[in-house]
Amino acid sequence: MPKNETDSGRFSYEGLDRVIHEKARLGLLTSLVAHPKGLPFAELKRLCGLTDGNLSRHLQVLQEDGLVSIDKRFEAGRPLTTCRITTSGRKRFLDYLKVLESVVRDAEAGCAAAIASPRLSGA
Amino acid sequence: MPKNETDSGRFSYEGLDRVIHEKARLGLLTSLVAHPKGLPFAELKRLCGLTDGNLSRHLQVLQEDGLVSIDKRFEAGRPLTTCRITTSGRKRFLDYLKVLESVVRDAEAGCAAAIASPRLSGA
Repeated sequence: MPKNETDSGRFSYEGLDRVIHEKARLGLLTSLVAHPKGLPFAELKRLCGLTDGNLSRHLQVLQEDGLVSIDKRFEAGRPLTTCRITTSGRKRFLDYLKVLESVVRDAEAGCAAAIASPRLSGA
Repeated sequence: MPKNETDSGRFSYEGLDRVIHEKARLGLLTSLVAHPKGLPFAELKRLCGLTDGNLSRHLQVLQEDGLVSIDKRFEAGRPLTTCRITTSGRKRFLDYLKVLESVVRDAEAGCAAAIASPRLSGA
């Protein structure tokens, strides 16, 4: 099968940053990118359908990697934790998003090509 | 913060099947969906930029979950392993793809909303 070597790694998607790509963290960043002022912990938990433990764990990963900042303070005597996407986190998320868009395009093109193929029934 | 409860779990993306979502497996399925007749092991390895060990491991996960079938035979005295996406695998991949498209749409809309917000500089 002599193939064109130029497509080596064509589907490796190196830009799919694993820190961002993980399902729960992808949801967290997608919600945070729309809220540059940040979201309270409880609101993030509700929007992303996560438990306290899971949310804490994923936020820690994102914070350690510089993607989000976490601000803890007291308001009216109660603790308030606010999470924000950082400037560099936003940039990395946008870079990731470009690769994700290319995956969607490749997959859609692949599906369309397979449907157009007369040999699909042999799949 | 009294919020509309209808958006609970808005960013949980339950349909992002973890078996498919993993970066290497996403690349494998994206390449296989375009080739319903299947691809040889060596060709998949090249297209997806994986080592023998990694490719074997991820193919095993996909096979055990019914997403791909693996056919081993001898041709001209040499072993030939061909991998194909199964009919149910294709259907699951298409379902996954719809959710992935919604992530991209949500993220793009979120970025656009943040840019339109006069308070972005407070991020």
